[in-house]
Amino acid sequence: MTQKNAASLTQERIAALVKNAIAEDLGDAGDLTSLSVIPENATAKVDIVARDNGICAGIDFADIAFRELAPNNRLTRLVDDGDALSHGTKLMHIEGNARSILSAERVALNFMGHMSGIASETAKLVAAVSGTKAQICDTRKTTPGLRAIEKYAVRIGGGINHRFGLYDAILIKDNHIGVAGSIEKALEQAFSYAGHMVQVEIEVDTLVQLEQALNAGARVILLDNMTPDQLREAVALTNGRAKLEASGRVSLETVKAIAETGVDYISVGRITHSAACLDLGLDITIKS
Amino acid sequence: MTQKNAASLTQERIAALVKNAIAEDLGDAGDLTSLSVIPENATAKVDIVARDNGICAGIDFADIAFRELAPNNRLTRLVDDGDALSHGTKLMHIEGNARSILSAERVALNFMGHMSGIASETAKLVAAVSGTKAQICDTRKTTPGLRAIEKYAVRIGGGINHRFGLYDAILIKDNHIGVAGSIEKALEQAFSYAGHMVQVEIEVDTLVQLEQALNAGARVILLDNMTPDQLREAVALTNGRAKLEASGRVSLETVKAIAETGVDYISVGRITHSAACLDLGLDITIKS
Amino acid sequence: MTQKNAASLTQERIAALVKNAIAEDLGDAGDLTSLSVIPENATAKVDIVARDNGICAGIDFADIAFRELAPNNRLTRLVDDGDALSHGTKLMHIEGNARSILSAERVALNFMGHMSGIASETAKLVAAVSGTKAQICDTRKTTPGLRAIEKYAVRIGGGINHRFGLYDAILIKDNHIGVAGSIEKALEQAFSYAGHMVQVEIEVDTLVQLEQALNAGARVILLDNMTPDQLREAVALTNGRAKLEASGRVSLETVKAIAETGVDYISVGRITHSAACLDLGLDITIKS
Amino acid sequence: MTQKNAASLTQERIAALVKNAIAEDLGDAGDLTSLSVIPENATAKVDIVARDNGICAGIDFADIAFRELAPNNRLTRLVDDGDALSHGTKLMHIEGNARSILSAERVALNFMGHMSGIASETAKLVAAVSGTKAQICDTRKTTPGLRAIEKYAVRIGGGINHRFGLYDAILIKDNHIGVAGSIEKALEQAFSYAGHMVQVEIEVDTLVQLEQALNAGARVILLDNMTPDQLREAVALTNGRAKLEASGRVSLETVKAIAETGVDYISVGRITHSAACLDLGLDITIKS
Amino acid sequence: MTQKNAASLTQERIAALVKNAIAEDLGDAGDLTSLSVIPENATAKVDIVARDNGICAGIDFADIAFRELAPNNRLTRLVDDGDALSHGTKLMHIEGNARSILSAERVALNFMGHMSGIASETAKLVAAVSGTKAQICDTRKTTPGLRAIEKYAVRIGGGINHRFGLYDAILIKDNHIGVAGSIEKALEQAFSYAGHMVQVEIEVDTLVQLEQALNAGARVILLDNMTPDQLREAVALTNGRAKLEASGRVSLETVKAIAETGVDYISVGRITHSAACLDLGLDITIKS
Amino acid sequence: MTQKNAASLTQERIAALVKNAIAEDLGDAGDLTSLSVIPENATAKVDIVARDNGICAGIDFADIAFRELAPNNRLTRLVDDGDALSHGTKLMHIEGNARSILSAERVALNFMGHMSGIASETAKLVAAVSGTKAQICDTRKTTPGLRAIEKYAVRIGGGINHRFGLYDAILIKDNHIGVAGSIEKALEQAFSYAGHMVQVEIEVDTLVQLEQALNAGARVILLDNMTPDQLREAVALTNGRAKLEASGRVSLETVKAIAETGVDYISVGRITHSAACLDLGLDITIKS
Repeated sequence: MTQKNAASLTQERIAALVKNAIAEDLGDAGDLTSLSVIPENATAKVDIVARDNGICAGIDFADIAFRELAPNNRLTRLVDDGDALSHGTKLMHIEGNARSILSAERVALNFMGHMSGIASETAKLVAAVSGTKAQICDTRKTTPGLRAIEKYAVRIGGGINHRFGLYDAILIKDNHIGVAGSIEKALEQAFSYAGHMVQVEIEVDTLVQLEQALNAGARVILLDNMTPDQLREAVALTNGRAKLEASGRVSLETVKAIAETGVDYISVGRITHSAACLDLGLDITIKS
Repeated sequence: MTQKNAASLTQERIAALVKNAIAEDLGDAGDLTSLSVIPENATAKVDIVARDNGICAGIDFADIAFRELAPNNRLTRLVDDGDALSHGTKLMHIEGNARSILSAERVALNFMGHMSGIASETAKLVAAVSGTKAQICDTRKTTPGLRAIEKYAVRIGGGINHRFGLYDAILIKDNHIGVAGSIEKALEQAFSYAGHMVQVEIEVDTLVQLEQALNAGARVILLDNMTPDQLREAVALTNGRAKLEASGRVSLETVKAIAETGVDYISVGRITHSAACLDLGLDITIKS
Repeated sequence: MTQKNAASLTQERIAALVKNAIAEDLGDAGDLTSLSVIPENATAKVDIVARDNGICAGIDFADIAFRELAPNNRLTRLVDDGDALSHGTKLMHIEGNARSILSAERVALNFMGHMSGIASETAKLVAAVSGTKAQICDTRKTTPGLRAIEKYAVRIGGGINHRFGLYDAILIKDNHIGVAGSIEKALEQAFSYAGHMVQVEIEVDTLVQLEQALNAGARVILLDNMTPDQLREAVALTNGRAKLEASGRVSLETVKAIAETGVDYISVGRITHSAACLDLGLDITIKS
Repeated sequence: MTQKNAASLTQERIAALVKNAIAEDLGDAGDLTSLSVIPENATAKVDIVARDNGICAGIDFADIAFRELAPNNRLTRLVDDGDALSHGTKLMHIEGNARSILSAERVALNFMGHMSGIASETAKLVAAVSGTKAQICDTRKTTPGLRAIEKYAVRIGGGINHRFGLYDAILIKDNHIGVAGSIEKALEQAFSYAGHMVQVEIEVDTLVQLEQALNAGARVILLDNMTPDQLREAVALTNGRAKLEASGRVSLETVKAIAETGVDYISVGRITHSAACLDLGLDITIKS
Repeated sequence: MTQKNAASLTQERIAALVKNAIAEDLGDAGDLTSLSVIPENATAKVDIVARDNGICAGIDFADIAFRELAPNNRLTRLVDDGDALSHGTKLMHIEGNARSILSAERVALNFMGHMSGIASETAKLVAAVSGTKAQICDTRKTTPGLRAIEKYAVRIGGGINHRFGLYDAILIKDNHIGVAGSIEKALEQAFSYAGHMVQVEIEVDTLVQLEQALNAGARVILLDNMTPDQLREAVALTNGRAKLEASGRVSLETVKAIAETGVDYISVGRITHSAACLDLGLDITIKS
Repeated sequence: MTQKNAASLTQERIAALVKNAIAEDLGDAGDLTSLSVIPENATAKVDIVARDNGICAGIDFADIAFRELAPNNRLTRLVDDGDALSHGTKLMHIEGNARSILSAERVALNFMGHMSGIASETAKLVAAVSGTKAQICDTRKTTPGLRAIEKYAVRIGGGINHRFGLYDAILIKDNHIGVAGSIEKALEQAFSYAGHMVQVEIEVDTLVQLEQALNAGARVILLDNMTPDQLREAVALTNGRAKLEASGRVSLETVKAIAETGVDYISVGRITHSAACLDLGLDITIKS
């Protein structure tokens, strides 16, 4: 499975995020419930279980969470990122200190639920466009501070990543064109600044603008809010001279029609900013 | 409006989150598009505009974002947190350095869209239970690292907050009871550890458990996954001896029936972990 | 011993505090004395030894300190947190790299001395009230940045914790009442904001105020600066309707008389803000 | 007053410590009491008042604390660091937003109480040795993470600072001598490593060792746990060839006798690790 | 001058770096020399002066450094980043608190000397290739942690930036080709992963490899360690189908010959990793 | 070799610097090239190889870098810090995960190249003064944020360290003398503030000033920008009463003549601020 190539997150990075979330949840006083009700040496066996269908993402986060408070806890991964889940699928088995498991549970599930939700939403769109050449990609409409893990989840769901920030590619939008004075001037300045290692994309709203962009040397073009008919015309007009990305009005209902116009990429904000959490739970068996 | 009392987030805290998000978006190379296409001294006038209906939350974040990169930018707030928005409502007017505004746009909108989405989802549930005494509250199912701002948004939407973490209240769930041996023992240990400044809640699944909990001195009880009929019985059985919270199977369709059973609180995970982003945009007028 | 339940500090948290203290002590140039005088491979055997009587607290901090600079150092704990110490008691035996031990010595002793001082001071008060139902608790008068470890030490000494900060419980003092207008209004607003998961306490100075508070529904009441006679009257007046906490003028001399009035809790600032360091030292045997 | 020269703490540093302490006290949920009971726009006039005699230290911390949550609060300093305080002395007058003042109160008082306690304890010892040439100095026995502000407070109290850490001077103790083999070898290695910018001190317990140290070129010598008679002999023996520091068994009762032996410095751990907090309070007048 | 477009560093970022450097220099004890020798209220007028020829870079860092310790210091910039300096050129005039100026001096000069050294070295190479179409660019051979400011300085010196890290562009080197099996396979996998927003470059050592790369669709190619003759052949063979970058054996002596072969970019590690500091000093006039 | 005594950098410190540099290089998207072209489980054997002559410094940094991304990588150190390198010397052999090695390569080489460059430059000067008693020392002219590792590298190269910052020693320069009014007054104030644990040095430009400084009790004196003849006179005049440090106009050509004047120390800024990176490379053998 090619999702294994998506391992852009270092263990260091994951650990830092998990530790931050644990600190957010434990505070200064710790897990008052476990401290008072669970004996210090009690042990438990638990499983993370899916309560809905979807795609697994973020299993490394659960791994680190359950070992953070008790390094000797024993974990067995039963699925990997990218695997399909259905109601009842067990994702991970954990045995060890009961307090530590109960204290880490919510952090582990919050990460995995959030990331799996994104991967699942992405995968639905990817499935819907299968058979076309279109690829589903994300946007910069992400949860503040969590972009790296959300873009990772998109890739796990079978999508590809658009730029990660304002720093790694140029995307000239209508407002930029307005200031620059024209598509030609905007592209000229962008190419000059970019050098050879930065990709330049420009957004157009009409076929007239598309033609201007192509003539000015654009090789990556964003077609914003066009109908399938307009998109089809744009593909024909471009005739392979540039890669084309469609955006706007994309949903599970519309995405196939958009993909069939022949565009190369379809970008969707909602897979990161509005994906519902995938429902995961912890089934627990307490031992002495 | 009482939401103004919800200002639990310090400016320091908000600024730290905004700066982190700006660093995430600008990286080391900065906003390549603005640097190349927008003249250093160009100015702009823009408005943040709602493209959907909902409740405004997070306007302080936009405020700080637009002044972070250019402290002299002039901002006018046209609404405040807690105000209702409809398609077309202008939230804020900004005038100043064009580059700084375009570079901060996404960060400002990502915060406000996320928080307003939560406030809006909460407000719908709050409206649905109006006329009953039930209050809508959140859970610990939040986005890792963003719990403080998500719980703030819940309050702005008219909900109240459940505990913020494992550290500020005790909530004894079925797993804890299992280890402790019985509801009585679990409560006894919890009361002993808690002292006088920590609230203790216990989760029960049946009326038998409810009675045990009440007899053991429980004064806050979570009724998990009960039907409205069961809830109504629970309310009658309790007869004012404890505050009752209902959870599970809560949606816009079911919430009114749950509220009408007479419970005091209804907790809902989806208002924080699965609320869709509220659609906000930036309308811009470039000046020389 | 129940102190084992006090383990609210994660290893992560302890490690972060220890690393910070080591950085404070080593700076950029390192331990100049050890670097110049102690051969790189010299080894040593040492014991941490009590030079006074008291209660041990913070042994995890010494553990991490002595392994931070040389993970292969071998440690044997001879006591645990909560154990009584007398002059000459050995707390821990350490064998390993001499430089690392000498470099970490002061950090380990500073933490343990500070925390054991607090635990010891607390334990004296706890012993003084034994036979009564009163429990000794702390306040928010703690050393800035070290509240979590100081409140941990209080618990190790047999005390319980009052609220950890402004965020986990409500305590209405005279100044708040003054602004709100009356005890009734203050309590009403507090209950409304608090919901079901936040405890509310109110401070009263007179029996008249106490009666008002009780009538307004207060269930946790702080009796500030009352004489034993007044406290006794307050207990009688309350008659089990609320938990009562006494504060002010508490010392080793007065605490028993206060406890014997029948109050539930006695809060003492000096156990955290003015406890003397417990005198601990390092006895060392150098090997080649 | 020369204490003004002690301003070794940058505003940046002070602000970071204050912000950390405020975050520790406010947590994620904020000051629940003020949020619920104090109207958002209520204002207050307050004074910080001494409830005991001592020396003021840390007024910059109160300043920053009271402006951190509401930059428009108006502060008037009525004393400065180093000034003597008696019961009832007003230290600072603050007018402004009531919530912000009540939320910052404890942080401001915790810093000032801790630092003033150290300055006061130092000043008592300094006064006790007045008329001799001996200077009171501190040690590395400080509260972890707060060494910089504690050493600042010592200087405010009229003491001087011993080394700040292991990094800024060499102090060869008995353990180091044990490993090196002899006083001569230890000093030789220390001088060789130190170069010309690092001071070297050596600890001796006997007059024989003192003579060895002097002969080996020691110019700063710590006389540990000697009686006044022994110290007097040491001073005579040294005859100006080295600066002499006395340590051990130093209290308000013994310090004058030690000083009169003619030593140059007397180092005292208890002024930092065991100084009682100076009692300060906040007197408040609420306005509408 | 187009260098003004290079302002990729936010003030926030610069301030963080400056504060870190000031903390590194002041430590816990502060500027002992100024604290002891310079009266607290002494003022001074100083100029930053060039003691060598070069290009100014980093003036914002000096600005923030001199205001960090005393916000009221008055600064006048006499040059801007990108301006040419000769021996004796005054860069900035500062008036204000003497202690703060002397304490910040070294930090300000260390930043400006380092950055101006890089800008100056770059500018020499840029001047040497003037009249050709070749542009000078940097590499990832930068000082750890300072890449952003070093790449900024390169741009100020008239160069352009190669990729900022491993994250913003793909550069396939010989080792990658070795693992992938062939140039064709490596490029195919890279294009597939990259999508439309990431640039792909491949390094070749021979003309045979160049042809393979071109045939496999490479549009940005790095010619490593080729002689001018080989480069000229490469340019001819490519015939506009790809952008060509030369690297290896680049010095002030060889760069013109390399540029005249017709390559588009010449990358040079030494402008960042080995540029000598530009000599800058502080001329000071003390007032009372 | 005595350089082993230079281990002033803790592993914690080194790890923090390495992690920061890896984060700088990997960003949010990770190593795009390795992720796309190198199979996840591919392994490699590589050697770090010197491409120039010099002194090895910073091998701990490479060690941590290559294990940071894959803790199971196996490393064999072939040299240690302080060892001489010539073109072709292998420094370290690494076997393990190919992606992790290629991703960490640049960070490892950037640290080692920078530090080895400083050690090598220092060693040349040290060699040039061999046979004299003069020692080569550094200054505060270091790369911002990297002073600790640069001063470590100086010591590895056989030099000694001047003060680490403004906080650990006093150095009175001409500007300070100007404000104080005279050499006598400046020294008197410095000695008074310094106490017994801080070294005091004063800079003089003439023999007249030297005499004043000696008479005022200076025991460490910096002779700035004097010719060898002047230095020789200064040594004679001082006649052992103080340690003498020469600075200014120091190069590989002049240093021997300066050393032969009899000064004790020669300080050189260029060994830290302008040392060229030592050329190191990675030779790699890919396995399946």
